[in-house]
Amino acid sequence: MSAKPLSDLSRLCIHTITTKPWPIEEAAGNFAASGVKGITVWRDALEGRNISKTGQLLRDHGLDIVSLCRGGFFPDIDRSKRNAAIEDNKKAIDEAAALGTTMVVLVCGSDPRQSLEDSRKQISDGIQALIPYAEKAGVRLAIEPLHPMYADTRSAISTLAQANIMAEALNSPWVGVAVDVYHLWWDPSLEQEIKRCGKHGNLLAFHVCDWNVPTTDLLLDRGLMGEGCIPVPAIRTWVEETGFTGFYEVEIFSNKFWKEDQAEFLKKIIKAYKEKV
Amino acid sequence: MSAKPLSDLSRLCIHTITTKPWPIEEAAGNFAASGVKGITVWRDALEGRNISKTGQLLRDHGLDIVSLCRGGFFPDIDRSKRNAAIEDNKKAIDEAAALGTTMVVLVCGSDPRQSLEDSRKQISDGIQALIPYAEKAGVRLAIEPLHPMYADTRSAISTLAQANIMAEALNSPWVGVAVDVYHLWWDPSLEQEIKRCGKHGNLLAFHVCDWNVPTTDLLLDRGLMGEGCIPVPAIRTWVEETGFTGFYEVEIFSNKFWKEDQAEFLKKIIKAYKEKV
Repeated sequence: MSAKPLSDLSRLCIHTITTKPWPIEEAAGNFAASGVKGITVWRDALEGRNISKTGQLLRDHGLDIVSLCRGGFFPDIDRSKRNAAIEDNKKAIDEAAALGTTMVVLVCGSDPRQSLEDSRKQISDGIQALIPYAEKAGVRLAIEPLHPMYADTRSAISTLAQANIMAEALNSPWVGVAVDVYHLWWDPSLEQEIKRCGKHGNLLAFHVCDWNVPTTDLLLDRGLMGEGCIPVPAIRTWVEETGFTGFYEVEIFSNKFWKEDQAEFLKKIIKAYKEKV
Repeated sequence: MSAKPLSDLSRLCIHTITTKPWPIEEAAGNFAASGVKGITVWRDALEGRNISKTGQLLRDHGLDIVSLCRGGFFPDIDRSKRNAAIEDNKKAIDEAAALGTTMVVLVCGSDPRQSLEDSRKQISDGIQALIPYAEKAGVRLAIEPLHPMYADTRSAISTLAQANIMAEALNSPWVGVAVDVYHLWWDPSLEQEIKRCGKHGNLLAFHVCDWNVPTTDLLLDRGLMGEGCIPVPAIRTWVEETGFTGFYEVEIFSNKFWKEDQAEFLKKIIKAYKEKV
């Protein structure tokens, strides 16, 4: 099945970090004026603000608040640090509820001083400990598998299979998975794991961008959809085939784009969304 | 089973690229004088030299020539380029034979203008086409799965499972696999795939280094064993449990180490080999 072009912007969400130079108020106004329908809020964008008022402002612009980024970073060889991480994740859940979104995305973390297996166990324990809190707040937790190049400190969960296994084991309606093409495009089992994720009701979010050829920075050189080598439309089709009806979220960390005029960049995002997602 | 420390240097091999500032003659002399027993030769180290005489020089130093790096780079959307790659791989096989080694390591390649599936098919076709030539020369071809961060242009084979599947399908005594901790350490199926690789007689080579935390360059910031977060001794133990009796090859690309005095660097390698492999 080949991908059908996206004819309108009804499912387009942009992460605040994508247009990082814009304060959230400015981003919200510009997104709404351009027809963007969803926004995912990074916690740094909320600094120094009243969170529920900011949420109201976003809704006043007609924006759906798709998720809050990010919780996670559970593993640490030091138990007191792991406990502190749980507390910070509770704070993220509170912020999500105050903002008026029902999802927190988890960058799960990894401690290079211990084995990946130990880090994974601590991730699972951390999420398990949060489930009652998440349920009370009405906020779902989305495990985001990260590219293996981040296995040292950012995520001991490197594949969708691993995220699926963990979400299935936790077996809670408050825990699911976020699929990001940047992290997962290379994986030969991606199609099958997307199907599995959907089948278990765990596919909560879908993030898009592209892999630049060459990539010059491990973190801050993501490309706009269509610029790189990721088959975004094919992956989007697999996601749709699961019955996913959520937003397609544009999440781009890019020193290059952050230096550009953000209004011009927003136009490029919308064009790329229509033609290359 | 915990790793037994390596009590001597009888299985230590160093890649010429690890001490890139040294011409191969100087590397060979210094390796031999330090008790290193094996050398893997990168093709750039042979430039402008008589290859068989260089092989003789290495043997005169008492060095085993473990492999030639590297063949591969099979995929291309352009058929004439794919044919040229086959010819270049035949040349690599000839060079290996002239040098007096029985293995060519393959960095298999990937063309970002086509799907990874297409690239993999072209890799498999390319290796298949080379088997009679490799057999005649008495040279084995080692498929090296590369870290997923190189899936865009360097290798559409990103996991040991993929390399195993391809080697098993090609089903030739002249085709096997090279395991490099840098590329594979993050993979949750690594132990099981190493066992599988050994069981099928496909484990031809074992490369070691470390993953720096943080890593500042996608290519040229590899660490010395023990400096980073890779559990090298655990992986070495899995390799040994298959019955592998080959060399442990130190392959480090590092702008940092290449700027240092190479004699001092060689001392560090030997210390790290004894204590951290």
